[in-house]
Amino acid sequence: MKKYFLIMDIGGTKTTGALFTEDGEPVDDYFHVVKSQTFKGEEAVYQNTKGVLEHIIEHFAVNMEDVLGIGVGSPGPLKAEEGIIVHAPLMGWHDFPIVKRLQEDFGKPVFLENDGNLGALAEVRCGVAKGLKHILYMTVSTGCGGGIIIDGQIYRGRNDVAGEVGHMSIDPDGLVCPCGSRGCFELYASGTAVSRRVREDIAGGVKNDLLASIDYDPEKVEGRILTEAAAKGDAYALECYRMEGHYLGIGISNLLNLLNPQAIVLGGGITKAREFFEEEMLRVLKERCLAPIEEDTVRYSVMNDRVVLYGAYWMLKEKL
Amino acid sequence: MKKYFLIMDIGGTKTTGALFTEDGEPVDDYFHVVKSQTFKGEEAVYQNTKGVLEHIIEHFAVNMEDVLGIGVGSPGPLKAEEGIIVHAPLMGWHDFPIVKRLQEDFGKPVFLENDGNLGALAEVRCGVAKGLKHILYMTVSTGCGGGIIIDGQIYRGRNDVAGEVGHMSIDPDGLVCPCGSRGCFELYASGTAVSRRVREDIAGGVKNDLLASIDYDPEKVEGRILTEAAAKGDAYALECYRMEGHYLGIGISNLLNLLNPQAIVLGGGITKAREFFEEEMLRVLKERCLAPIEEDTVRYSVMNDRVVLYGAYWMLKEKL
Repeated sequence: MKKYFLIMDIGGTKTTGALFTEDGEPVDDYFHVVKSQTFKGEEAVYQNTKGVLEHIIEHFAVNMEDVLGIGVGSPGPLKAEEGIIVHAPLMGWHDFPIVKRLQEDFGKPVFLENDGNLGALAEVRCGVAKGLKHILYMTVSTGCGGGIIIDGQIYRGRNDVAGEVGHMSIDPDGLVCPCGSRGCFELYASGTAVSRRVREDIAGGVKNDLLASIDYDPEKVEGRILTEAAAKGDAYALECYRMEGHYLGIGISNLLNLLNPQAIVLGGGITKAREFFEEEMLRVLKERCLAPIEEDTVRYSVMNDRVVLYGAYWMLKEKL
Repeated sequence: MKKYFLIMDIGGTKTTGALFTEDGEPVDDYFHVVKSQTFKGEEAVYQNTKGVLEHIIEHFAVNMEDVLGIGVGSPGPLKAEEGIIVHAPLMGWHDFPIVKRLQEDFGKPVFLENDGNLGALAEVRCGVAKGLKHILYMTVSTGCGGGIIIDGQIYRGRNDVAGEVGHMSIDPDGLVCPCGSRGCFELYASGTAVSRRVREDIAGGVKNDLLASIDYDPEKVEGRILTEAAAKGDAYALECYRMEGHYLGIGISNLLNLLNPQAIVLGGGITKAREFFEEEMLRVLKERCLAPIEEDTVRYSVMNDRVVLYGAYWMLKEKL
């Protein structure tokens, strides 16, 4: 009889469920995606989340006797080993015992892990860093998150917050961050930062064809417009990504100098603009890194939105 | 019959040898310190270095049959497992096979490790972080070096350069560093940085009692004078250390956010001024760190100059 793993990726905007085979393949390549409920209260949000798994069970008419366990990825902060989501303000969850709740509801072993850590795990198990022992995974989109793999295992640190690359300060007197610090890397290198600089340019009266094409309307600034313009050789868009590459280079050089991993894997929306930021990023890395930058030091995730699901599968497989 | 370990710490200014018992005690608390030969050529410097061990053997009239092995700490860059010192310009050593040479000369197993890593190892084996699994060790004096312990073991990274905390950039357009980068942490937080700021103040025409007491002579600026003045409540000296605490806080918060270790252990000359920089450092840490700063998150090494020797003993004991 075939056995299965129930897998879920709880995100701030959407929650995804899938059924994985024991061999690590999502059955029928089917993913059930729902909008994450927010501001509906702890219990309503939990019921919505649990519904994702119920849908998967129903969709495949899977016999629960054939389900070996449930793997859940979630943004931090977590107490992963205790199965608790410490703080998810959008969900209304505070010290929410999600593992205990899912165990009670489904009667199966449940394991929880930080999504950045699961991304890192997926990359060394079945991604572009397969087989490597020490890597850093960094996802760059709205913010910058990440995970650290040391000796082939997730490194969580003392309070399960290791790998918080987004809140490394790269400018002591820089921009104020909601986290309480200043000059945090993600304020300079996230996708959000690219858009913010464009809006600042609009506010500052910068004039050019690209900005004219969106009527100098800050609301119309989005990554897609910039990448399309860059692809057509628009100088302003290319400069936006050169700057992105510059800041990525500064942050990543810090990470490489400190951790000297075998590779850093970049994921998240920004990787779509790779061709536009890569040259400047590599220039900065070569200028600032102590160890040589090899051709395969920086790698790009190809798992896109599914990286956390694959990571949750591997976590579960290795825990059971 | 008692067995012994020959232990050596090769530094840029001095090289120290000692004989350790199997229980990890330096025999007679005796340390042989010589000035490190520099600019004398590869071979002459090696003979000087080797002489430190010969002196120890002679001093104790130890029978080589009772010596189990030789442990050597050295600044990086190294290829520790291959026993090679990659680059030690002052010593004239390039890809110098020190382990092979010492093995040939003494006929014993020899192990080499980066001094920052050995400092970290010593702290978790017999220092202020004894028994912890994940720590960062940082030595702040002329520069800022360090080492990382993960799961109770030295974490070296891909090219044996993990833990190079000094070359984390904290200011993207900051001071130019000889390493090729800009804004490196050690340019702001090392002991050298404290003195440099004082010299800049002298050059900038700053007038006060402390600077008058050294005749506004940049050559007379040294840490001892500042700590003595701070101890007497001199406002300028206290401000120098407040600024040191500020930059330490900025760099250490990055390290804590990224690695979330159980503790960071500070060593090196700067710890003598702890009482003057600690308050500001902790204030910045509490402001900038994601995880709570506990009373024992920041610890201070008490092994002083001997931390690398103790680390080399533990490395050797665990390798043999």
